[in-house]
Amino acid sequence: MRANKLRDLWKTGKAATNAWLTLPSSLGAEMLTHQGWDSLTIDMQHGQIDTAAMCAQLTAISTTGTVPLVRVPWNAPGDVMRALDAGAYGVFCPNVDTPEDAARFVGACRYPPAGYRSVGPARAALYAGADYIVHANDTLLSIVQIESAKALKSVDAIAAVPGLDMLYIGPSDLGLSLGREPRPDQVDPVVMEAIDRTLAAAKRAKLRSGIFCITVAYAKAMIEKGFDLVTVTSDSGLLSAGARMAKAFTA
Amino acid sequence: MRANKLRDLWKTGKAATNAWLTLPSSLGAEMLTHQGWDSLTIDMQHGQIDTAAMCAQLTAISTTGTVPLVRVPWNAPGDVMRALDAGAYGVFCPNVDTPEDAARFVGACRYPPAGYRSVGPARAALYAGADYIVHANDTLLSIVQIESAKALKSVDAIAAVPGLDMLYIGPSDLGLSLGREPRPDQVDPVVMEAIDRTLAAAKRAKLRSGIFCITVAYAKAMIEKGFDLVTVTSDSGLLSAGARMAKAFTA
Amino acid sequence: MRANKLRDLWKTGKAATNAWLTLPSSLGAEMLTHQGWDSLTIDMQHGQIDTAAMCAQLTAISTTGTVPLVRVPWNAPGDVMRALDAGAYGVFCPNVDTPEDAARFVGACRYPPAGYRSVGPARAALYAGADYIVHANDTLLSIVQIESAKALKSVDAIAAVPGLDMLYIGPSDLGLSLGREPRPDQVDPVVMEAIDRTLAAAKRAKLRSGIFCITVAYAKAMIEKGFDLVTVTSDSGLLSAGARMAKAFTA
Amino acid sequence: MRANKLRDLWKTGKAATNAWLTLPSSLGAEMLTHQGWDSLTIDMQHGQIDTAAMCAQLTAISTTGTVPLVRVPWNAPGDVMRALDAGAYGVFCPNVDTPEDAARFVGACRYPPAGYRSVGPARAALYAGADYIVHANDTLLSIVQIESAKALKSVDAIAAVPGLDMLYIGPSDLGLSLGREPRPDQVDPVVMEAIDRTLAAAKRAKLRSGIFCITVAYAKAMIEKGFDLVTVTSDSGLLSAGARMAKAFTA
Amino acid sequence: MRANKLRDLWKTGKAATNAWLTLPSSLGAEMLTHQGWDSLTIDMQHGQIDTAAMCAQLTAISTTGTVPLVRVPWNAPGDVMRALDAGAYGVFCPNVDTPEDAARFVGACRYPPAGYRSVGPARAALYAGADYIVHANDTLLSIVQIESAKALKSVDAIAAVPGLDMLYIGPSDLGLSLGREPRPDQVDPVVMEAIDRTLAAAKRAKLRSGIFCITVAYAKAMIEKGFDLVTVTSDSGLLSAGARMAKAFTA
Amino acid sequence: MRANKLRDLWKTGKAATNAWLTLPSSLGAEMLTHQGWDSLTIDMQHGQIDTAAMCAQLTAISTTGTVPLVRVPWNAPGDVMRALDAGAYGVFCPNVDTPEDAARFVGACRYPPAGYRSVGPARAALYAGADYIVHANDTLLSIVQIESAKALKSVDAIAAVPGLDMLYIGPSDLGLSLGREPRPDQVDPVVMEAIDRTLAAAKRAKLRSGIFCITVAYAKAMIEKGFDLVTVTSDSGLLSAGARMAKAFTA
Repeated sequence: MRANKLRDLWKTGKAATNAWLTLPSSLGAEMLTHQGWDSLTIDMQHGQIDTAAMCAQLTAISTTGTVPLVRVPWNAPGDVMRALDAGAYGVFCPNVDTPEDAARFVGACRYPPAGYRSVGPARAALYAGADYIVHANDTLLSIVQIESAKALKSVDAIAAVPGLDMLYIGPSDLGLSLGREPRPDQVDPVVMEAIDRTLAAAKRAKLRSGIFCITVAYAKAMIEKGFDLVTVTSDSGLLSAGARMAKAFTA
Repeated sequence: MRANKLRDLWKTGKAATNAWLTLPSSLGAEMLTHQGWDSLTIDMQHGQIDTAAMCAQLTAISTTGTVPLVRVPWNAPGDVMRALDAGAYGVFCPNVDTPEDAARFVGACRYPPAGYRSVGPARAALYAGADYIVHANDTLLSIVQIESAKALKSVDAIAAVPGLDMLYIGPSDLGLSLGREPRPDQVDPVVMEAIDRTLAAAKRAKLRSGIFCITVAYAKAMIEKGFDLVTVTSDSGLLSAGARMAKAFTA
Repeated sequence: MRANKLRDLWKTGKAATNAWLTLPSSLGAEMLTHQGWDSLTIDMQHGQIDTAAMCAQLTAISTTGTVPLVRVPWNAPGDVMRALDAGAYGVFCPNVDTPEDAARFVGACRYPPAGYRSVGPARAALYAGADYIVHANDTLLSIVQIESAKALKSVDAIAAVPGLDMLYIGPSDLGLSLGREPRPDQVDPVVMEAIDRTLAAAKRAKLRSGIFCITVAYAKAMIEKGFDLVTVTSDSGLLSAGARMAKAFTA
Repeated sequence: MRANKLRDLWKTGKAATNAWLTLPSSLGAEMLTHQGWDSLTIDMQHGQIDTAAMCAQLTAISTTGTVPLVRVPWNAPGDVMRALDAGAYGVFCPNVDTPEDAARFVGACRYPPAGYRSVGPARAALYAGADYIVHANDTLLSIVQIESAKALKSVDAIAAVPGLDMLYIGPSDLGLSLGREPRPDQVDPVVMEAIDRTLAAAKRAKLRSGIFCITVAYAKAMIEKGFDLVTVTSDSGLLSAGARMAKAFTA
Repeated sequence: MRANKLRDLWKTGKAATNAWLTLPSSLGAEMLTHQGWDSLTIDMQHGQIDTAAMCAQLTAISTTGTVPLVRVPWNAPGDVMRALDAGAYGVFCPNVDTPEDAARFVGACRYPPAGYRSVGPARAALYAGADYIVHANDTLLSIVQIESAKALKSVDAIAAVPGLDMLYIGPSDLGLSLGREPRPDQVDPVVMEAIDRTLAAAKRAKLRSGIFCITVAYAKAMIEKGFDLVTVTSDSGLLSAGARMAKAFTA
Repeated sequence: MRANKLRDLWKTGKAATNAWLTLPSSLGAEMLTHQGWDSLTIDMQHGQIDTAAMCAQLTAISTTGTVPLVRVPWNAPGDVMRALDAGAYGVFCPNVDTPEDAARFVGACRYPPAGYRSVGPARAALYAGADYIVHANDTLLSIVQIESAKALKSVDAIAAVPGLDMLYIGPSDLGLSLGREPRPDQVDPVVMEAIDRTLAAAKRAKLRSGIFCITVAYAKAMIEKGFDLVTVTSDSGLLSAGARMAKAFTA
């Protein structure tokens, strides 16, 4: 089975870069996969990417060695399994608040006896190799998003769910849930404390940790802090730079 | 944030008209949005409209001031949130039978602390404005469909769910559930009594009320009765008139 | 090979009814194909129907016995052949002004030695049968649209092109070209004279004749006049009735 | 209402053949529907077929008399109902482990009072006829997949769920769950015993039985054993033969 | 008919800004249309945008007042007319080398008697108003691209074609054709001379002039030089900034 | 620039294998690209593959080292250039009858001064490298199909067109044009003579030669005869084997 380059990277002590795809465009995915990111995340939650577009983008990402990841819209086993069957090498589950949530999600990511994933890796086996079923449980990443006050309370119990690979912080939801601003690249002390607490929980449980950022500087600071994966930008974030260019003509 | 014209209309004491979209056609949506309806509902339950088509139709509706609404296939948080992120100004949830169903649905429509909606209004903020997150909870409509004997029994408890905006009657399901004919534009006394009971519950709870109709005459009668929103026709209903034209040549 | 029901109908002396598809919706096509029209035309010229949607609609029409026809965007051999390979039982070519235009079009509709159509009827052979290539030239309809002053001047020469099956009148273009109103269901004497002239040319050449209409009454009058195929309505025409319904609430 | 040919076939004591669709291609579906299979299953679980592609394939299958079936991605009422509204004449539910799972699924397949399916058979009524709602509960097939050790333990209780029509064996998942190889066309004695036990449970409950196979020989053996429906191949299975052809040039 | 804001802008002596769409994404188009560009060009030539995506993007652009333009893949009347019927307010024709090329193109943009465009502005009339046909010839822009040595030789004859609105320079093709580098934001003296010559020809013929650029600075310089429309960036150009961000982590 | 493996292969004296894609399925393409073919041809002429599907399939093929080729629907420069911009490493042009046809096609495949291809290789440069424009003329293959009596007469003149790379025989069209059966894997002496004549013309002009076959045995024989590229099967050809499997149950 094709190795998961993120696992290899982490073994060398390095952090992984990540960018986010929100437009349902295969060509957009192919452009970003040639930019040198360690991984790309296809966002089916807040992006406009449905099952068909996800499949197309997984194929586009497979034209390079970038690791393809998917965020599912919600903690629903059918969506998790379809992302994996289509060749995702890791899945982000949003809004995981309890260990039960986490266990339900991780179970959908793992074949029996570790979980309850159903067998049928149509495209995944093309991408990863004929021995996919044998190695999938040890290769694919299951990632839960910690992004609420409720989740913070159970963060160690969530981190203890067998088979879980990473705690990933969604700073906008986390901020709003804590009564602070819903935004990325947080500096609010209340949110920063929650971020530190989550990172510490991941370290204690020997899990990987990740966080959504929108600038290079902030992402680098998060690597310094100890995060294993940092999201740095997104297709829509890059497009938004056009507004400044347009404004240059009206000044 | 762009105001919700339906709320404005209701404040003036008027009822709102509504038409239904069931074909996955952006052009069809654009034709109807130019016809003068106060609102259009994209039907992802019984229509053949999936996530991609819903996004396209929300854009099509946004070319005019018609208020875009979505009916999700089922009471699933992921679907509700994607409809809102894509710019729906209200969501219909089918087959709500209990206050728990209603609370689960309403929570998906509202940002914390009122609910558990996740932050990421990609297209919604384009359509509604940069201050979307601040005003969304007060602007968007959460609408539950009352369409079973079971729901009728709890109709007041359902209506009491905080944050709910409207009880909307699905007369075909309601009829069938009551052992009567599954059809719109009901006149059966048993169903009419249920309709009246639902309308009264909405009024008591100071909620808006709505009902699915298929003729102008029936819809006008429902406005007379006190409904705030009446569905009058649908794209497929309009297409069906072709059968009479075809038959005119075989007589 | 599956017979062409339009040819069978004409042999009995009857005129054929036709409706027009302009929305790229397979479901819309399937609704109309169940309404009893003798034929449906997929409009790739003024409709928003591209190659993919055309293929989907040909399949939808094939769920009933309605005869599937396609209007190509322009007199381009590649488009004509793709429509036929996908199972169209006739093709309309817009804006044919000269016998050379007509010959180029008819040649694209016919296998050698009658024409220069290329062999590869992928879906057509599924729909029509394994002996498709043998009978296609005698079964499929090649239809040119007469819709300009220029075409009128050569109408007899156009009608004489070997292999041509029908002259079909586009009244809007014809009207505009003659300096009159660009509209269907013409009554302007100048346009009516042109219509009569075209019909007469078709009769002289022993071709079938057709005309685009938008009401039952006008279409019936055209049958009376001697036309073999009348377009009576379209999906978008049917949808436009919604405007009247919406207006009923604002009066 | 159009009869369900599988029910008719079974009444004559015959077994039904079935092939599986995993590519989201309407043309692929149309090719297979002309090959003489009694039924085709559109696989939304392990295939890359989403809602839009499912609708297109149901239309493609409707061009012949082959019975259209759908496997949903997971036991979710919204997905089950959309498949039926789109014209599926039966639904497979994967990974049913308990009678509660089965009851939830069967309820989604049946109109009240037998179940809780919502009324709105948009395309289904086109395909099946105007009296669809009256006869749907007796015509459509609800099929649960028995494919885990857990399900085996409750197989009689599952089979006793009112309204259920068939137990269908997924041999890959079943094998893996039993600690054996995850593969079709099983010969492992442990798995064969489970297959026999499931078949016997179906017979006892007077349900139909089915099994996924990948060769003619194995499928015929399963018919001999008493199965009522055998899956014999799939579009992707057929495509895989190309590998042997390619290899013939490198030997 | 809705006015063409570019014509209004030019009457006030201002130049118009323009951005280019190359990804087949309706959401991408909607993001850029909210950025403040005077116009957007949907690129069907070098972009991956086909007819269906073009229609979707025209709708997306119509949610704001930005003027929607289309570049067709080639000088083919069917493509030009479909872009206009779908609501484009101007069309770019690539690789126009002769006055005959230009006349063929302009004729496809204009209704008789000025040209040979066919009547059927399905979506265009929704967008522009019911009097579309009356005013279209005076409102829509026909733009030819001057981008070869051959075109330069006939530039005054091309500019003299009646009904033409703008000469637009494609600097990459022009550079390559002149034996220089194929790149935008040219400074090569040979190419600059050709640019000046084309601009002068446009001025002489009282046509508008435009040029493709990729930076704000260059575009502003072109406005200074006298150009009426400057393309400043594109969706793919904006996405390419991600490569620098990714590289920041590998340094 | 990424090398063209077919050119490398031919330099070693080997023939190249090829399979044909006719279904608009990215997953289908990805399955075949993993089967070991030297090249795959996306058939936009007789397949149901449009521009969007072609782009998706080129991406799918790019996940392996298989060389991606495209057959355009007709000899139209816009289609040829879009296929190349999307990353095709060679284009087949159907129905080339004269040296003029061939020159028009080859010119569309080549940048100036060799041809008139327009600059803008959006996806092609991602796939092939940043120096694409410099090497494209020497890397990409321009292939004309010889498939008519008329073409045979000019076969040496066609072969002499500068920049042409291959004569490829379409045996069905060729057979029909010669008054014989329209079928692949021809044995008819009249057609065989034409095949030999075309092959000889290619050899004389030092061009590559290719032929469409449907069995391994015939393709091997054609390699023996001296052909450089043999098409061996297609996705639809592989699917057709299902008919035999279905029939095995009715015998």
